[in-house]
Amino acid sequence: MREIHPVQPYPYTFGKYHEPIAQVKPGETVVLYTEDCFEGRVKLETDLPSQVAGHYLNPQTGPLYVEGAEAGDMLMVHIDDIELTRDWAVSAQIPYFGGLTATTLTATLQDPLPEKVWIYRKQSDGRFAYSDRFAITPHPFMGTMGTAPDLEALSALTPFTHGGNMDVPDVKSGNIVCLPVKVDGAYFSTGDCHVAQGEGEACGVALEISGKVTLSFEVVKRHPIAWPRIISPSEIMTVGSARPMEDAARIAYSELIQWLIREYHFDKWDAYQLASQAGKLYVGNMVDTYYSLVAKLSRNFLE
Amino acid sequence: MREIHPVQPYPYTFGKYHEPIAQVKPGETVVLYTEDCFEGRVKLETDLPSQVAGHYLNPQTGPLYVEGAEAGDMLMVHIDDIELTRDWAVSAQIPYFGGLTATTLTATLQDPLPEKVWIYRKQSDGRFAYSDRFAITPHPFMGTMGTAPDLEALSALTPFTHGGNMDVPDVKSGNIVCLPVKVDGAYFSTGDCHVAQGEGEACGVALEISGKVTLSFEVVKRHPIAWPRIISPSEIMTVGSARPMEDAARIAYSELIQWLIREYHFDKWDAYQLASQAGKLYVGNMVDTYYSLVAKLSRNFLE
Amino acid sequence: MREIHPVQPYPYTFGKYHEPIAQVKPGETVVLYTEDCFEGRVKLETDLPSQVAGHYLNPQTGPLYVEGAEAGDMLMVHIDDIELTRDWAVSAQIPYFGGLTATTLTATLQDPLPEKVWIYRKQSDGRFAYSDRFAITPHPFMGTMGTAPDLEALSALTPFTHGGNMDVPDVKSGNIVCLPVKVDGAYFSTGDCHVAQGEGEACGVALEISGKVTLSFEVVKRHPIAWPRIISPSEIMTVGSARPMEDAARIAYSELIQWLIREYHFDKWDAYQLASQAGKLYVGNMVDTYYSLVAKLSRNFLE
Amino acid sequence: MREIHPVQPYPYTFGKYHEPIAQVKPGETVVLYTEDCFEGRVKLETDLPSQVAGHYLNPQTGPLYVEGAEAGDMLMVHIDDIELTRDWAVSAQIPYFGGLTATTLTATLQDPLPEKVWIYRKQSDGRFAYSDRFAITPHPFMGTMGTAPDLEALSALTPFTHGGNMDVPDVKSGNIVCLPVKVDGAYFSTGDCHVAQGEGEACGVALEISGKVTLSFEVVKRHPIAWPRIISPSEIMTVGSARPMEDAARIAYSELIQWLIREYHFDKWDAYQLASQAGKLYVGNMVDTYYSLVAKLSRNFLE
Repeated sequence: MREIHPVQPYPYTFGKYHEPIAQVKPGETVVLYTEDCFEGRVKLETDLPSQVAGHYLNPQTGPLYVEGAEAGDMLMVHIDDIELTRDWAVSAQIPYFGGLTATTLTATLQDPLPEKVWIYRKQSDGRFAYSDRFAITPHPFMGTMGTAPDLEALSALTPFTHGGNMDVPDVKSGNIVCLPVKVDGAYFSTGDCHVAQGEGEACGVALEISGKVTLSFEVVKRHPIAWPRIISPSEIMTVGSARPMEDAARIAYSELIQWLIREYHFDKWDAYQLASQAGKLYVGNMVDTYYSLVAKLSRNFLE
Repeated sequence: MREIHPVQPYPYTFGKYHEPIAQVKPGETVVLYTEDCFEGRVKLETDLPSQVAGHYLNPQTGPLYVEGAEAGDMLMVHIDDIELTRDWAVSAQIPYFGGLTATTLTATLQDPLPEKVWIYRKQSDGRFAYSDRFAITPHPFMGTMGTAPDLEALSALTPFTHGGNMDVPDVKSGNIVCLPVKVDGAYFSTGDCHVAQGEGEACGVALEISGKVTLSFEVVKRHPIAWPRIISPSEIMTVGSARPMEDAARIAYSELIQWLIREYHFDKWDAYQLASQAGKLYVGNMVDTYYSLVAKLSRNFLE
Repeated sequence: MREIHPVQPYPYTFGKYHEPIAQVKPGETVVLYTEDCFEGRVKLETDLPSQVAGHYLNPQTGPLYVEGAEAGDMLMVHIDDIELTRDWAVSAQIPYFGGLTATTLTATLQDPLPEKVWIYRKQSDGRFAYSDRFAITPHPFMGTMGTAPDLEALSALTPFTHGGNMDVPDVKSGNIVCLPVKVDGAYFSTGDCHVAQGEGEACGVALEISGKVTLSFEVVKRHPIAWPRIISPSEIMTVGSARPMEDAARIAYSELIQWLIREYHFDKWDAYQLASQAGKLYVGNMVDTYYSLVAKLSRNFLE
Repeated sequence: MREIHPVQPYPYTFGKYHEPIAQVKPGETVVLYTEDCFEGRVKLETDLPSQVAGHYLNPQTGPLYVEGAEAGDMLMVHIDDIELTRDWAVSAQIPYFGGLTATTLTATLQDPLPEKVWIYRKQSDGRFAYSDRFAITPHPFMGTMGTAPDLEALSALTPFTHGGNMDVPDVKSGNIVCLPVKVDGAYFSTGDCHVAQGEGEACGVALEISGKVTLSFEVVKRHPIAWPRIISPSEIMTVGSARPMEDAARIAYSELIQWLIREYHFDKWDAYQLASQAGKLYVGNMVDTYYSLVAKLSRNFLE
């Protein structure tokens, strides 16, 4: 299988301004290697990100030019496998970043939380442990995955209509992530692999690790979508990313309802009713530039 | 077992200004009967709430005076059983109310969504169905459950520090709901039974039904809590209710972390780290006066 | 003129559950004396509110029963004069309270800001000074003014549809404050006099003082209003109180537009257009339970 | 004086990816011509933006390469004059755009407001009138003004740390706008001239017009600022742009306080106190990608 490695200088944006590092055909299975969010520079508890990390976070592997993908199409990313390529992972508490602290956007006059690093090591039982009390069962997924916006170059820390830094645990092996194609070739990239992450990613840093993701692309022609979708064997999902958080919730459920109407031929108000009684809604991240919420519905209702 | 029926005129607030309808001892099992959110007045698809419902929603059964409960205590409500007392349930789309419409608070100049009623009937398989496509498996829970605030009388549509209209599916049989006691006797009440409800309760009205809840109280002396907690056989949970939604998320995780610190002796930053990697965070409601979010942690981490 | 003094125990809510302390006729001029927000207990820089203040803030003078006011009417409060009854005022920085700190609702894990008191003294030039650098020209106004909600008892720290703790500098002498009447008699109260306050009341505590407000009531029959209005000699204004702050802005402008449509016979879209080009929109408070925003339009456009 | 005209294809982003159209020396006075937000395509009430406007809004005049400006410097833009170059202006109501409607971010299931265009013509008294009732006194200002972000290319509809689409009426003749320099040469651009605009820009479209702005640049070396500042003859101001709106308010006041501390040597808590008692806080826009709020303080306090 074709292997694609990240190329330095790494892209730290989603956008059309970065040259593609490879051209990929729909249906072709490729293996992408990804760096961790810190470019692997935080290895010890004494490696404070403010001292050792670069200026930007979430280096991307990409962009990939997907042949035949044109603006207005939908890109389906079939994730076959996500393999962790290290036996340790890192998390951190970064000053003025995270969900339970003032930030540069939620600005206060308070002192920051202390900077701190946690190194988790893989145990013989497969779990990643920081201490006996903290042994986390892996559920690997990609923190970032997206295409290029048509006009903007958006930071790899930002989730939005193009996907990006959604930090949604359902971007995982066995699922299909559907992204809008906004520029010819799609300019797909991914990175920021997580061993595991709680819903909300409260402190802003998951169990960060390098990874190897096996995937293939499918291009659905002339099928514009406004926001990312995820299809699992048992559920359909939509991802809304916005602030305040209720706007992310509104987007996620609105998109789910539009999906039911357009592709499953539901009456508009029945679709709203069904989402109201049978939908699920969890927080992917409460820390990024925009918060990401995931609305879900069981595929049992679609048959 | 002692049975307690709602008394007219029903209370439509949580507060100390309503006379208790019964006095209950800790440890005593009681059965509370509850009306649906519309006082049972919406029975047909032609019964529009704007025409047949009363001025207020969510009639409460209570308040109950819990003997020995004093301000500063914690009230643990052990929910033994929730039985549905009808074979039909009702949902509705109410103008300028709900998660995917302008409301009186998120005010716009747009026309409202049409008013509409859905009647679900219990099928032989136990599911509640509106049509063949919409058959919902019951997971009964109480939409409202709370104590009296110390000073205010808050609408039965409002969730806040006292519990109230949280619309959180984990307020269910087998779980323990922990509420702050702010006035002597606690002034507990409950109501708004739901056959089922999606996370977020997108349209603002679940499968509304009358119910019969069997529960007992336990009073933990001098154990103030700032926000409601829920304990299930496998998880501990906190409920934050606020606007914007990110504030509800912040409250839920902050309270979970304080709980880990105070009662499970975690280091503060380790507790934050654990919540970040292993917490769950879902939306109870995105429609009420305040949004309610639930943060969870597996009890496996507490041993 | 009839003088009305606050009665102990002071009401700390707006609501119908407190007995009126006086009955007033429309057209009658009354003089109300008000305590400062701390009941006058914070007098020195060493008087920390956490140690000397009572459990509740903003003691009210009232409620007043306004004769002839019935639910559905509008109460116009003509403010003739606000006199400051002390030669000193107090402000403070209170832990986990204010606009530039985490609070109990915007909860973080950070330490609070230090508690601190500022005493301002009246100078010979009439300004209130904390130091040479901080001499503030008085523009006295009432921080709280409201009627009783129909159902709830709301804290005197809360602004909402009934008025309440709006902290809006336009509640001043020479202006008319219009409040909804929701219960017979209106149950009007006021308090929390401010020597001066910046827009937003960033730290949450203005130049707090005791006061003497001279006012009279006018009852407009069968004229329901959804939110408070203010009429000055040159402008009409609406006050929206909600969270997030954009909801307060939406309410304020929506109400202004509805006012233009209903009482000044504007076309709906022209009213929206006019507000868009000629409206003013400032922040009253960014610190209370709900944020209060004021939308304004010059009366030149109304002729 | 040197005149600089916009160059097609117009930039629709702030970013370093667009080639500069001119190089300018600090101290040199230049005259920039700007197109209106619709590129002048909406000329009649029958010209609906959805039919005649291009895909993007707010064409920029620029970027200008400012000689000697390096990342970490502050760019002071002295606005000498803003001249309106047409005798008519246009406003519009655009579906799912504006402050009193659902939008693509505040998504609901409601129908949009009707699309509609208003043409204002200059009267002999200098005012711009849509009808006798709507005659607006001009107070010309630039809706967009900014530098390039270091990494991103941000839409010309977005206000953020670099300035951009702030829609703040204080970006006017006689004032100085201070912007961060994030890339060498600053990459300054401006556009979106407004005859007038209400605070909040409620419908999302001001009185849009083409303009001619006379300005000069001053570069302050090694003087990083986090957010834009404005200096008028009588006040200092900071602009915060974020969602929810309270975050914009927090940024604006935090930056004002940092400014007082760093450049006017105030004690931190005294600066907070002064902003609390004497600050002003108004809404620039409540419609763009981020809301922009302006905090102000009289220069009287700075002497």
